[in-house]
Amino acid sequence: MRIVIVGCGRVGAHLAQSLVKKDHQVSVVDRNGGAFARLGGDFPGSLVLGTGIDEDVLRKAGIEQADVLIAVTNGDNTNIMAAQVAREIFGVPRAICRIYDPLREEIYRDMGLETTCPTILGATRIEEILGN
Amino acid sequence: MRIVIVGCGRVGAHLAQSLVKKDHQVSVVDRNGGAFARLGGDFPGSLVLGTGIDEDVLRKAGIEQADVLIAVTNGDNTNIMAAQVAREIFGVPRAICRIYDPLREEIYRDMGLETTCPTILGATRIEEILGN
Repeated sequence: MRIVIVGCGRVGAHLAQSLVKKDHQVSVVDRNGGAFARLGGDFPGSLVLGTGIDEDVLRKAGIEQADVLIAVTNGDNTNIMAAQVAREIFGVPRAICRIYDPLREEIYRDMGLETTCPTILGATRIEEILGN
Repeated sequence: MRIVIVGCGRVGAHLAQSLVKKDHQVSVVDRNGGAFARLGGDFPGSLVLGTGIDEDVLRKAGIEQADVLIAVTNGDNTNIMAAQVAREIFGVPRAICRIYDPLREEIYRDMGLETTCPTILGATRIEEILGN
């Protein structure tokens, strides 16, 4: 698959490394060049400096041929908007976005976005460890 | 159970609310009083202002009678240290700590701490959604 990842924080970088190992073609977008250091020196994907809601930046990252966009910046609004731009403007088949706020996650999931909420995920995991 | 939660961020607050609903006795510690607003006005647990690695603060939170400590501040080091203080100094039976850095999480898990890594959890969840 051709995958565009917006946000090269811990999760974005971890995903990018995992997905290239599975032979996917990965582009990573971040507005902070220093963030790309998380990928290590031998990352085979492409790196694009800029914000993931800017159409030109997304084009440089290959959004027009992408099968999936994954939005994992630290900002819920940026992630939601990047996913919507990908789907609505570029017709990307799938867009997955991370939304920290459980209320907004539910709203956007009901609207048809593919979402993941680290708050609920993290709390649920700890309750599993607790065994209750 | 008597549970002390260190860190009233999104996950800490979500957990605290969920655990009081299950009739556990919950104390929440945060060094920023404003963070307690996340719990809402009718939270029945106790709130303790201070840092979760300070023994006096932990005593105020009832650490001496606690069955579990859960450390979910934004700082890996604080979480690790709070868990170790709980286990080693106060003999708390269980201490669960969140560690963002996957490498450190593995090390401390091998050393016997109960840990959870939101980086791996988040990336894994997105790969599950992707279906690969």
